[in-house]
This record gives sequence, structure tokens and C-alpha cells, in this order.
Amino acid sequence: MDLKRIRNSSLHTKIMSAEEACNFIEDGMTIGMSGFTRAGEAKEVPRALAEKAKVSPLKINLITGASLGNDLDKLLTEAGALARRMPFQVDNTLRKAINKGEVMFIDQHLSETVESMRNNQLDKPDVAIIEAVAITEEGHIVPTTSIGNSASFAMFADKVIVEINMLHSDKLEGMHDIYIPEARPNRTPVPILNVDDRVGAQAIAIDPSKIVGIVFTNKSDSFSTVSDPDEETDQIAKHLVKFFEKEVEEKRLPENLGPLQAGIGNIANAVMMGLLDSKFTGLSMYSEVLQDSTFDLIDAGKLDFASGCSIILSERVNAQVFDNLDKYRDKLVLRPQEMSNLPEIVRRLGIIAINTALEFDIYGNVNSTHVCGTKMMNGIGGSGDFARNANISVFVTKSIAKGGAISSVVPMVSHVDHCEHDVDILVTDQGLADLRGLAPRERAVQVINNCVHEDYREALLDYFERACERGGHTPHLLEEAFSWHTRLESEGSMKKA
Amino acid sequence: MDLKRIRNSSLHTKIMSAEEACNFIEDGMTIGMSGFTRAGEAKEVPRALAEKAKVSPLKINLITGASLGNDLDKLLTEAGALARRMPFQVDNTLRKAINKGEVMFIDQHLSETVESMRNNQLDKPDVAIIEAVAITEEGHIVPTTSIGNSASFAMFADKVIVEINMLHSDKLEGMHDIYIPEARPNRTPVPILNVDDRVGAQAIAIDPSKIVGIVFTNKSDSFSTVSDPDEETDQIAKHLVKFFEKEVEEKRLPENLGPLQAGIGNIANAVMMGLLDSKFTGLSMYSEVLQDSTFDLIDAGKLDFASGCSIILSERVNAQVFDNLDKYRDKLVLRPQEMSNLPEIVRRLGIIAINTALEFDIYGNVNSTHVCGTKMMNGIGGSGDFARNANISVFVTKSIAKGGAISSVVPMVSHVDHCEHDVDILVTDQGLADLRGLAPRERAVQVINNCVHEDYREALLDYFERACERGGHTPHLLEEAFSWHTRLESEGSMKKA
Repeated sequence: MDLKRIRNSSLHTKIMSAEEACNFIEDGMTIGMSGFTRAGEAKEVPRALAEKAKVSPLKINLITGASLGNDLDKLLTEAGALARRMPFQVDNTLRKAINKGEVMFIDQHLSETVESMRNNQLDKPDVAIIEAVAITEEGHIVPTTSIGNSASFAMFADKVIVEINMLHSDKLEGMHDIYIPEARPNRTPVPILNVDDRVGAQAIAIDPSKIVGIVFTNKSDSFSTVSDPDEETDQIAKHLVKFFEKEVEEKRLPENLGPLQAGIGNIANAVMMGLLDSKFTGLSMYSEVLQDSTFDLIDAGKLDFASGCSIILSERVNAQVFDNLDKYRDKLVLRPQEMSNLPEIVRRLGIIAINTALEFDIYGNVNSTHVCGTKMMNGIGGSGDFARNANISVFVTKSIAKGGAISSVVPMVSHVDHCEHDVDILVTDQGLADLRGLAPRERAVQVINNCVHEDYREALLDYFERACERGGHTPHLLEEAFSWHTRLESEGSMKKA
Repeated sequence: MDLKRIRNSSLHTKIMSAEEACNFIEDGMTIGMSGFTRAGEAKEVPRALAEKAKVSPLKINLITGASLGNDLDKLLTEAGALARRMPFQVDNTLRKAINKGEVMFIDQHLSETVESMRNNQLDKPDVAIIEAVAITEEGHIVPTTSIGNSASFAMFADKVIVEINMLHSDKLEGMHDIYIPEARPNRTPVPILNVDDRVGAQAIAIDPSKIVGIVFTNKSDSFSTVSDPDEETDQIAKHLVKFFEKEVEEKRLPENLGPLQAGIGNIANAVMMGLLDSKFTGLSMYSEVLQDSTFDLIDAGKLDFASGCSIILSERVNAQVFDNLDKYRDKLVLRPQEMSNLPEIVRRLGIIAINTALEFDIYGNVNSTHVCGTKMMNGIGGSGDFARNANISVFVTKSIAKGGAISSVVPMVSHVDHCEHDVDILVTDQGLADLRGLAPRERAVQVINNCVHEDYREALLDYFERACERGGHTPHLLEEAFSWHTRLESEGSMKKA
């Protein structure tokens, strides 16, 4: 505990244990909590709440920025403390509860949650729990490694609990840019014109009398579980870099490509890693999550500036970044997810959006979320905020999964998160399909020729040809459109025996 | 012919017949043409081109604002003159050719076409053909009853053909507001802060030397085929008005609801008509198409201002409006579709978007375009520009079609244009489902209880219950998800025999 982290000394009386802070949380409440892509979540109070719920049952509606680290979703789920959860998660235990219908999960475009609250279309939090580096003289809250929805949660809630995390460097202060849109009907344009524009405050400005408890912690963020690029992700990156080179050559993209967004996870991270070996320089990012690749690209002198909403790093890169924050100070900004993902900015800046598909179909519809159309993996996240308004919307995936039992390219996706209109480029290890300006029947030819694994190519072509015989703008055989998925479920493989 | 309509007299030498103007159009060219929701399309040159193609075959790629009137898509299709068509159409003959795969149709979000051209991702037009009220002293083009993509087409094309339509009142001049976004990376926010803001020019500013031909015409726009409200559309309107009243009462909407958008067609028009009998005043529209209901609401003193991209009226209302344009001058503005549909503005203003669904499913996914998943009706139009960024996204449809053989509420939509994340409110004649903040299993209960026709309710509930037994965040039985559609195709009805 270091009282210097609470620069408004009148708040020193609010220091308490996590258990004491839990007393502000009652059964049925809506709790708004910090945390985005397993970075910057409050750590002590939710853990204590899970313990408490085991002995005196209670259920809350938990709303965060995005996913939580430190197994918090697991602990809360196991304690039976979650009635409702939004807008994103990545936890295996919670996922099972969601798919059993035990926890109501509301999967949302990440830019929209606090907008819906602002307009009273979603319940505002009763209590906000925000991880902080410090509290300023004014009693304002300095976030840590993510901003997520924390600023709006703290503004909306009557009671705010702050977790001061001593393990986070106080040098994080100054890296945040917190801009909140005005209430309608007097809203003005968001004044971000460049990735590095700073238009807001460095801390979350609330009335300090709303801070009812301050808890100290020394727990670290979870490390990213991102894995090194493998043969397939290398191929995906190579196809995409080659495509970018051609786009620049043909004057469709500027030399520095314009701002890049990359979704969370191994494949998108590997694609960004692929830019390390490319000729591109002067790159920039306007993204939600900043992963290992962001910092490797900065260190290599390839990336000039990165705007994000959170930083989540693997053990390899973590110390390199957080022990040397001064080095990155003028190359980074963290924004609320409402700003990092705002369609207005995505379109204005002309972002190249690179997101991961679970599967896509011959016409370029993308499923980002549902295994066999029913079981939730994580959530749509920010992909929909970016894909529709991007200059170029790219989706990447490996052509096969589970040792070849699953083809990621299917006749018809079993769930649609991104419709054909929002998908420009599809990339697998097999190749790249450029769908821009093509009609569905033309898109199918590109996808089948370039993206599908050879084990499935003939079957997919056969489906398409038989569908075309029946006709239609988007030819399909509805009675067998999902036959690959049902075969997977009954026989363990999409391949015909 | 009235030379006063061409105020730049150096252009008087460019007057020619439609047949002569056709000489600028060659096989394989991309043609950008005015016309949006059957309003303000060039009329003489495309008609002459269809005649010409019958004797000396040629094929063009035709890009418009949206749909064309005066049977032009029919005539061009019958003449075999269309290789490719984008981004929207409503013609029965063209529709058949699209569904046979004879014309490649590229169905696009209507705000995106010229953005893609600006970034060289779509071919720019070789020739633009623009209907005009007049040409100014500067040689700038004053559009007629729609703007669509005309301004950008004229700017991108090397050659521009202008059709001066003498039947359109010259009082239309001054009703247009033509704003074109800057090229990236120096783009600034679009400065529209209110529905009635004027931020651009009154005419399309091009170098007059690009005008290679001027053709005169006296042909009128086609009348809208909108029908009077019927019992079902009345019910839909009543459910929605009741919902709006509750939203205002509970402070989720302002007294005047905020700006309204309504899609083209009978149902959306009827819903707007329903506001005539409501208590609401001080209404405004920020929409793409302005239909009969817009002017009825203005005349009734209910609607203060309407911003649109086109005006299409039935015979009943047409003269009332166009013979009295002075009356509406300070209550109307027409914008390019890139501006009328811009996500940036839709989100800033907090629009209520009301669009028509072909069908929707128990989880709130919407199909706006494809009959039984394969056959194109019209196109997604602007619905995707509005729905994702709207304050409230509403989709309306009658609960049954074809005398009850079709349920518009199905287990799983056969094509997804709007995913669950973009759909807040569903309304049929049966009732209204408020899906905001609900998980899929909760959404299904609302949809089944409120929207489905009684003839199908039991079967839909049975599907949902059996799917829930199998589990999943979004429970489905993939092997029978489309059984209602396949039964319709094989037996002529979705009902079990």
C-alpha cells in the first residue's frame, strides 16, 4: 500500500479490504467493472465476491469492457454469482454455463454498451469497480492497462470502488485519453482526426464523493496466451503482405497502408508479426487491443504509433514494455472502447480491419462466434464495429481445424456475425480471396479456388455447382446447407466417410 | 427545350439527341447514373441505349444510386445490355435475370459505393449520366428529385451526359445540399449536427468541359406504387406508436422521438402514417427516401423537417408537393446517399431506424433480401447503414404472407442481412418484441410470444424447446432449421400438412 497513489488525501479514509468493499454489492445489482481483453480488470473485489457468494448466495449482472483475466469469470461462475454477463468473455467455465443457459450472456458490439446505457436502454451500474494506477488530487481515477468501459461506468454508478494496483507502473499515467461523447441531441463530431490525436482527459473525472471504497492489490494482469506463429499463420501473413504490396503498387493503398486494426488472438497477432519481415514502414494502428506484435513492430522501427483500448502481452514481451514505458510514451495512447471502436472514426481514418473468423462460407459470410451455430465461443467483440466501416475488411482463419476434421470454409456458415456486405478479403493458409466488387457467384469461385483446403475443395465445388443448377442470386441447397456441420456433430468430421 | 435551363451558354452547343449521346457509351464501359428509389433517374439516354443494344449488342456495368423508374432496368435487361448492376434494384425482369445468374448483381450498403470508388476499390464510371433541373452559370449540375451517387459519379467520370428534365420544377434548385468527404488521410468530420444543417453546395461542381452531351426530356418520374395502409400495417403502426409512447414516458426517448428513418415500401410508409394519429409533434426525419407519409406529416403539422436523398410520391400526393414546392422549401433537404446514410451521422443524431424485414427468426436475425435464402428480391439498400448505428433499430413485417402459407417468423432465417446485434425491436401485426439487453434464449421467448402468427406459434415454440434441450447459447436444430423453407418450396406452404 502506498498512500502517494491516492493524491486526494480526503479519500485515505476510504481504504478498506476487498471483503469490506463487497458489502456495497447486493444480490440483483448491476456491476460495471474494468477489464478489457484480460487487461486492467479489478482483481481483489470480484475474487472476494466469489468467496462471499459461496457462503451467502447472490447473483449479479456483470458488465465489463470485454474479457477478464485472473480466472475471475471462472471463479464467479463457479460461485454461482453471475445472473447476466455482457458484452464479451473468453473463459471456459463461463462459456459452458452460457451454453447450458445458466448464465444469460449478451453478446454486443463493443462500442455500443455504454451508448445503450447513456440512453437508458440498458441498466446503468449500481456499483462500478475500477482498477487504477492512482487517484489524482481532484479525486479522478487513472486507469491501468485498459480503459474499456470504465470511464462511463464510473460516471453512471452512484458508488465507485477503486482498486489501486501497486504492481502497475505509475508511468502508465498520461497514456490514457478519455473522451466521452456528449448526450444527444447536442452531440458534436468526435474530434479524432489522426491515430495520435489526444482529445480527452488523462483520468476519469468523477465526483470523488462517489468513491465509497479503495482496495489495494499487488496482483498482476494475466499474461497473454498468444502462441508463436506456426506454418499456417505464417502462410496467412505472407498472403496478406503480398496483397498489401499489390494494393500499394496499384495506388489503392498509401505506402504506409493507413491505420491497422487487428483482432485479439494468435492468428491476427501472427499476421501483424508478418509485417516485421515486410518492406512496410511508417505503420500505425487504430485498434482495440495492443498485443505482442504491436511492440515488436515499434521496436523494429516499423510502427510509428498505436492507439488502443488495452495492452495484453505474453511473458516474453511483458517486462520489455512495462519496465520501459518511457520508451513507448510518445508512441501509444489508450482510449475508451467507445472511441477505439467508434464507427465514425473507423470510416474517417480508413482503417484496414483484420479479424479472425471461426468459419466463413463460399459467399463470404463470416461466423466469428458460434460453434456449429449454437455453442458460443467468446463473442463478436469489436469485429463488427470495425468490419462494416473499414477501408478494407479482412477476415483470417486456418483452412482446417481439429486435424482436418473441420473445414473453416463451408457451404453456408451456421451463424452469421458478418454478412457478405461487410467482408472484402478472406485469407487462409491456402490463399487469399479478394471479394471486392463481386457478385455472390463470383465470390464463390474466388473462395473455392483460393481459400479452401484441398481435402474439401472438390466437395465444396460440387455443392456450389449443384446449387447453381437450382438458381438464385446466392445459390444454395437449403436441405444440405448445414450437412457438413451435422456430419461433424454425428460423425466427428465434416468429411464424408 | 428551354435554353434558360442551361445558364452556362457555352454549353448550348452540347445539346443533342439521346441517340447521339449514346455514342459516348461503348461496350464494356462502366456507367454511373442518377436515380434513387425510382426518382430522378436519367430517362432518355438509357432508353435509347436499350434500343441501340437490340441492334448492335453491347453490355455495360450500370451503377446507380439505387432503383430506377420508368422500367429502365427492364428495358436494359431485355436488351441484354447489363453485364453488371449495383448497388440496388427493384425490377421484376432484372430480378429474374439476376436470379438466373445472367446479370451479376452486387448488393451493397448504399452509403459505401462511392467510398469504394474513391479508394479505387471499384471501377470509376467512364461516363456519368445525370438528370438535372438546370445547369448553372458555372456549368454545375442541379439534380432533380434524387441525388443518389450523382455528385461523385460526375466528379469521377471523364465524360458527363446531362439530361435536363423540363417536367421537374426549377424550384427544386436550392433544395439540395451536396457535401463530399475529403480524401483520406486528411478527412475531417462531416459537419452535420442537426437534420436541417446545410453544409455543402446547391449543385454538383464539375469542370463543365467534361459535359459532352445535353439531352432534354419531358418524361416524369414513375409514381410510387405505395398502397394505402391495411389492417395489418395499421396494427404494426399501432404497436410501434404505443412503444414510442412508453419510451418517452420512461425518459428513454425525447418528446419528439429524435430523427426518424423509414425504409422504402408499404409497411414503413404505413408505420409513418400511423404517427399522423399519434400525439407526437415536432418530429423530424433523417432518412434516405421521402415518401407520401413525409408530406402528409408535414401538412398535418407533425413533422418539422425532413432530410432525405430522394422524393418518390404516389399519384395522390405528387401534385400536392411538386406544385407547391415553396411551401416545403424550408422543411426539406436532399443529400447525396453517402451523407443521408452515413453511419457517423446516424450514430451522432441518435436515429430511430425503421426498416422492413422479409423474415426474421426467433433470435432476432433479419433477412431483408433473399426469398428462401437464394432468390434476390431487391437488395439490402440502406438498412445496414442505419440499423447498426441507430439509437433504436426497428424491423417491421407482416406476420404471415401468401395467405398464411409463409410465416415471416421462422426458426432460422435463410439469409442474414442484419445479425442479432443490430436488431432492437421487431414488430408484426401480432405485436412487438423488445429485444434490448436480452440473451438469445430470452429474445426467443419475446419473439414467440409477441410476433408470430397463431397458426405458427405452437410449431415455433416446439422448435425452440427442443433446441434448448440440446443446449447452446443460441439453441438450434441444424438438421431442421430450414425445414419450414424447404417445406414451402416442396409443398407450397410452411405449414405441416
